[in-house]
Amino acid sequence: MRDIISSYDFSKSDFEEIFELADKFRNISPPKILKEKTVALAFFEPSTRTYLSFNKASINLGASVIGFSGEEGISVAKGENLADTIRMLNNYADIIVIRHKFDGAAKFASEVSEKPIINAGDGKHEHPTQTVIDLYTVYKNFGDIDNLTFGIMGDLRYARVVNSLLRGLTRFKPKLVYLISPPQLSARKEILEELNYPYKEVNDYNEVIEEVDVLYVTRIQKERFPDESEYEKVKESYIVDSTLVSKMKKDSIVLHALPRVNEISREVDKTPQAKYFEQASYAVPIRMAIFHKVIGE
Amino acid sequence: MRDIISSYDFSKSDFEEIFELADKFRNISPPKILKEKTVALAFFEPSTRTYLSFNKASINLGASVIGFSGEEGISVAKGENLADTIRMLNNYADIIVIRHKFDGAAKFASEVSEKPIINAGDGKHEHPTQTVIDLYTVYKNFGDIDNLTFGIMGDLRYARVVNSLLRGLTRFKPKLVYLISPPQLSARKEILEELNYPYKEVNDYNEVIEEVDVLYVTRIQKERFPDESEYEKVKESYIVDSTLVSKMKKDSIVLHALPRVNEISREVDKTPQAKYFEQASYAVPIRMAIFHKVIGE
Amino acid sequence: MRDIISSYDFSKSDFEEIFELADKFRNISPPKILKEKTVALAFFEPSTRTYLSFNKASINLGASVIGFSGEEGISVAKGENLADTIRMLNNYADIIVIRHKFDGAAKFASEVSEKPIINAGDGKHEHPTQTVIDLYTVYKNFGDIDNLTFGIMGDLRYARVVNSLLRGLTRFKPKLVYLISPPQLSARKEILEELNYPYKEVNDYNEVIEEVDVLYVTRIQKERFPDESEYEKVKESYIVDSTLVSKMKKDSIVLHALPRVNEISREVDKTPQAKYFEQASYAVPIRMAIFHKVIGE
Repeated sequence: MRDIISSYDFSKSDFEEIFELADKFRNISPPKILKEKTVALAFFEPSTRTYLSFNKASINLGASVIGFSGEEGISVAKGENLADTIRMLNNYADIIVIRHKFDGAAKFASEVSEKPIINAGDGKHEHPTQTVIDLYTVYKNFGDIDNLTFGIMGDLRYARVVNSLLRGLTRFKPKLVYLISPPQLSARKEILEELNYPYKEVNDYNEVIEEVDVLYVTRIQKERFPDESEYEKVKESYIVDSTLVSKMKKDSIVLHALPRVNEISREVDKTPQAKYFEQASYAVPIRMAIFHKVIGE
Repeated sequence: MRDIISSYDFSKSDFEEIFELADKFRNISPPKILKEKTVALAFFEPSTRTYLSFNKASINLGASVIGFSGEEGISVAKGENLADTIRMLNNYADIIVIRHKFDGAAKFASEVSEKPIINAGDGKHEHPTQTVIDLYTVYKNFGDIDNLTFGIMGDLRYARVVNSLLRGLTRFKPKLVYLISPPQLSARKEILEELNYPYKEVNDYNEVIEEVDVLYVTRIQKERFPDESEYEKVKESYIVDSTLVSKMKKDSIVLHALPRVNEISREVDKTPQAKYFEQASYAVPIRMAIFHKVIGE
Repeated sequence: MRDIISSYDFSKSDFEEIFELADKFRNISPPKILKEKTVALAFFEPSTRTYLSFNKASINLGASVIGFSGEEGISVAKGENLADTIRMLNNYADIIVIRHKFDGAAKFASEVSEKPIINAGDGKHEHPTQTVIDLYTVYKNFGDIDNLTFGIMGDLRYARVVNSLLRGLTRFKPKLVYLISPPQLSARKEILEELNYPYKEVNDYNEVIEEVDVLYVTRIQKERFPDESEYEKVKESYIVDSTLVSKMKKDSIVLHALPRVNEISREVDKTPQAKYFEQASYAVPIRMAIFHKVIGE
């Protein structure tokens, strides 16, 4: 039993074991290892996709699910201190999945909790289970994660999926990682200092798009910009449309954690590069496999 | 496996088979035909009654239930396009029940979805499973649906239950259908053109109330009127109270899809004509029977 | 089968039987007496803690759970009259747990409902299942409830847990109950007239704190005061901090129904008197035991 707060909580062999388990769970009905157990989904910040996929993963393993989400989760966050809420959930649940708008909320929860904590996204910090889904999709498409060229594009400063992905990639040997963003949204220095593989920061995707095997797209949010007109200008330069995709290698892939707004045009959905729906389809088997690792069976 | 978008998706023999199944499920514990299956309740528009009855019908058949409703459903509708949400739910569920404020949302969902879609109300369009409940109640009270005189009263223009009921009745042979409404809220021409049975539009229920076997009441909503004083005037003329009921035939019945506000006075609840609570009690067995038809067992 | 509306619905032997059942359920896996049954959690007023503990108690006994809470519950309360909602729930559930902002809502629901109603808090009236948790905590700490000195502190006028506790204590023989509150928030006369044990009203806890065995703390809410500055003044005088606790007897205990805001400082959490987390841990076994009594097994 242990907590999953960061991508660093997975060793390379953890990733490999989870991939193997997910392969299995996509084909066979999984053993009900959470029978008679309860999973609490404590979503202090709304996320219907992540909530439902943890919910379904729990059900598939035989667990009961309790929890809160949406407006109710926001109210709980306001209504009492996080430590008291986590202590409460310790009375009701065997595993606690937490999503919170504050960086470090999951770590803090794990210090209070006697039950395992799984971080389903905390502020701008991390979202490690998404990274396992992301890397599994790469693995299924290329048979490997090593020796590939990645382009990670959009908001690299505030997007927690990017932090978790960059850290997760330290367990592998990517050939090169391009960090494609406007200067205002470049990756944080502290993160870059942690990386053990070659990377390069660029502002214009045109410089690198023909080279990348995996293009990982994140949304650029209006609220990051003090000036709306500047946002409008920047946004246009980071939209993935079929013109962009037509410049990519034939066997390259485009990933996105979803939901998207307009950072990937719908015309891209029909291109062979579009793998974000495939990626989304792995959310449940990967989270089932992660539950297995956490429960230790 | 198939979708249920409109009352037209039920043939006469579908109605009859569902009625028979519902009869059975009211008496015996039903087979768990949805065991190991998951039903997604995707309520982009709030409706606690409809949500809970689909929830209970799913449980009774052994299904797990996931989904969203209330404010969260409204947020999901805003947060990403419907097609992406439906694709997401295809990863988590075996049957998707959808409620949405836009006309045609259920049909659109069915075009994207590989899993069966059940329309639980889409805008001003249809609410077909309610119609099966409505007609079952008529059937239980009269032993038949043919040869009866219906009065459908209130908002016939924007109430989707009316569209579904009018279309559902084309599978039977009603003697006559009175459409009782203020002129502003009369039934849509396109719908009337589809009908294969005699109907008559009237503004004053007094002209016909002594004749009807089934009085089907819908709420007149304030927001349909540009002028509030006009609304107040109209509203008063379409309230079902005990004076109105006292003019009805002895074995006639009053139906309403509930919830009601004040369009049926509470004093009516004690009259023998009041069958809307009985009608509500059929929601679960009818929806169980519909799940059976959809799953094809 | 019966309703639980008030602490008065428990006789002394009911309390004792529930305590005994809770002892058992804390150690052994309970029989699934609610298998194939459905519990409706009808939370017209939000309360995540109470909702989740009833949810978990239901699951532990094998029940399915349906219901509403948060904003959705508030909407349901606005959307139709309570009687109609309760009639609806009678179609879906075998036991109905209700929480409502209006005094008397649970009693009213029980008059409409054919299924047992459990009051999970109605306005300023009562919250009887909380009282069973409270008294069980006293019982576990002292081996008895009789002959103890209680201090009940804070808002004694509007806090329903206080009403239920004062009434529940009539089933036992407390030595003395101090009612510690600002004059504006003193206990209601009608309640005091019902008490069959010695009590004394005081404004300053310093007069009595060295004497009490059980200090029961409730929150003083800003909205009770017409003048905010008066609230600020009063609030400060009813905060439990480690200075206050240091004056208490060595084997005395501090209870609180939670969630707390700042009426108990977090520094108190580490004192041996702090038993409110222990108290919270009894919510599920006590509510399981109450379900047993209601179902009559």
